[in-house]
Amino acid sequence: MQRKQIKHCRECGTAVSYRIPDDGDTRERAICPNCGTIHYVNPLLVVGTVPYLGDRVLLCKRNIEPRLGKWTLPAGFMEMDETVAQGAARETAEEAGAQIEMGPFFSTMSIPRVGQVHVFYLARLLSDQFDPGYETMEARLFHEAEIPWEEIAFTTVRETLKCFFDDLRRGAWGIHDIDIHWQPPQ
Amino acid sequence: MQRKQIKHCRECGTAVSYRIPDDGDTRERAICPNCGTIHYVNPLLVVGTVPYLGDRVLLCKRNIEPRLGKWTLPAGFMEMDETVAQGAARETAEEAGAQIEMGPFFSTMSIPRVGQVHVFYLARLLSDQFDPGYETMEARLFHEAEIPWEEIAFTTVRETLKCFFDDLRRGAWGIHDIDIHWQPPQ
Repeated sequence: MQRKQIKHCRECGTAVSYRIPDDGDTRERAICPNCGTIHYVNPLLVVGTVPYLGDRVLLCKRNIEPRLGKWTLPAGFMEMDETVAQGAARETAEEAGAQIEMGPFFSTMSIPRVGQVHVFYLARLLSDQFDPGYETMEARLFHEAEIPWEEIAFTTVRETLKCFFDDLRRGAWGIHDIDIHWQPPQ
Repeated sequence: MQRKQIKHCRECGTAVSYRIPDDGDTRERAICPNCGTIHYVNPLLVVGTVPYLGDRVLLCKRNIEPRLGKWTLPAGFMEMDETVAQGAARETAEEAGAQIEMGPFFSTMSIPRVGQVHVFYLARLLSDQFDPGYETMEARLFHEAEIPWEEIAFTTVRETLKCFFDDLRRGAWGIHDIDIHWQPPQ
């Protein structure tokens, strides 16, 4: 919804027009012909965790669209009045009801096609009991060999899981900075 | 401008009301009583670089508000259709006109008070000649002892510069994940 083109001014409701502002900007913005408000549209942050217990990772089966029924790491849009790590912990509580100890920053991925940046932290699970919220059908732990790779909801989750198990094998956590560019279906 | 409260619907221009949506959300959003559009406000990404040549860092003297006349690292709001690193490189070109080789991810800082996340990459300078744009009065290199600490424009820039010189001294680049909480003036 929020990525649709802006049609009306947020300040006064007048229909906007699109042009490059006169302030040195180089991009077209939605500008109000009545009150002059310039409307900016910028990428959104999606924040989450890789909750793990030993060599198993917690995945959540989505109970909402998009990707209903597919598996994901707990993650969602960062909100105002929180840090990236606080947002990641909040999503983990909401989607999985998991008890965690927040770990270090782990992966960041830009997805220019959809105007999003995804950030994941490692999070050590303190219990194997979960209490998922309404967004999740089921939350359970997976060994690497059990990961349903074809049923993973998002590319950023698949990439982060690959990095997690690679790092687990070599015995050292890295920082993973990845760009995700859309590829046409084969 | 864009952080002011939304008053009118972006889709139809009707005055919005504030309430918690009926979709399981837990936060108040601006909702249109006419067409039902829910308006989300989320944190913004500011992306930039630490351009360095040997043990000197490039700073830009701001030619625009806020913090006119103060010194900063090249950085600005991430735009749609770019990756974090592309945005950081674009800002470095626009504000400093510097020739760089992009390096690794270096620092990320959450500033909940203003709803921003700042991200800096290291960037090796390929030349000591700069061609700053209209946003910058002057661009020049500083040794650590020359840094005008009291004249640095933003807390995130000061923190990133401290991390840079600490890492330079110990001979290894780290990844710095910092939360910036507002403190009342002493």
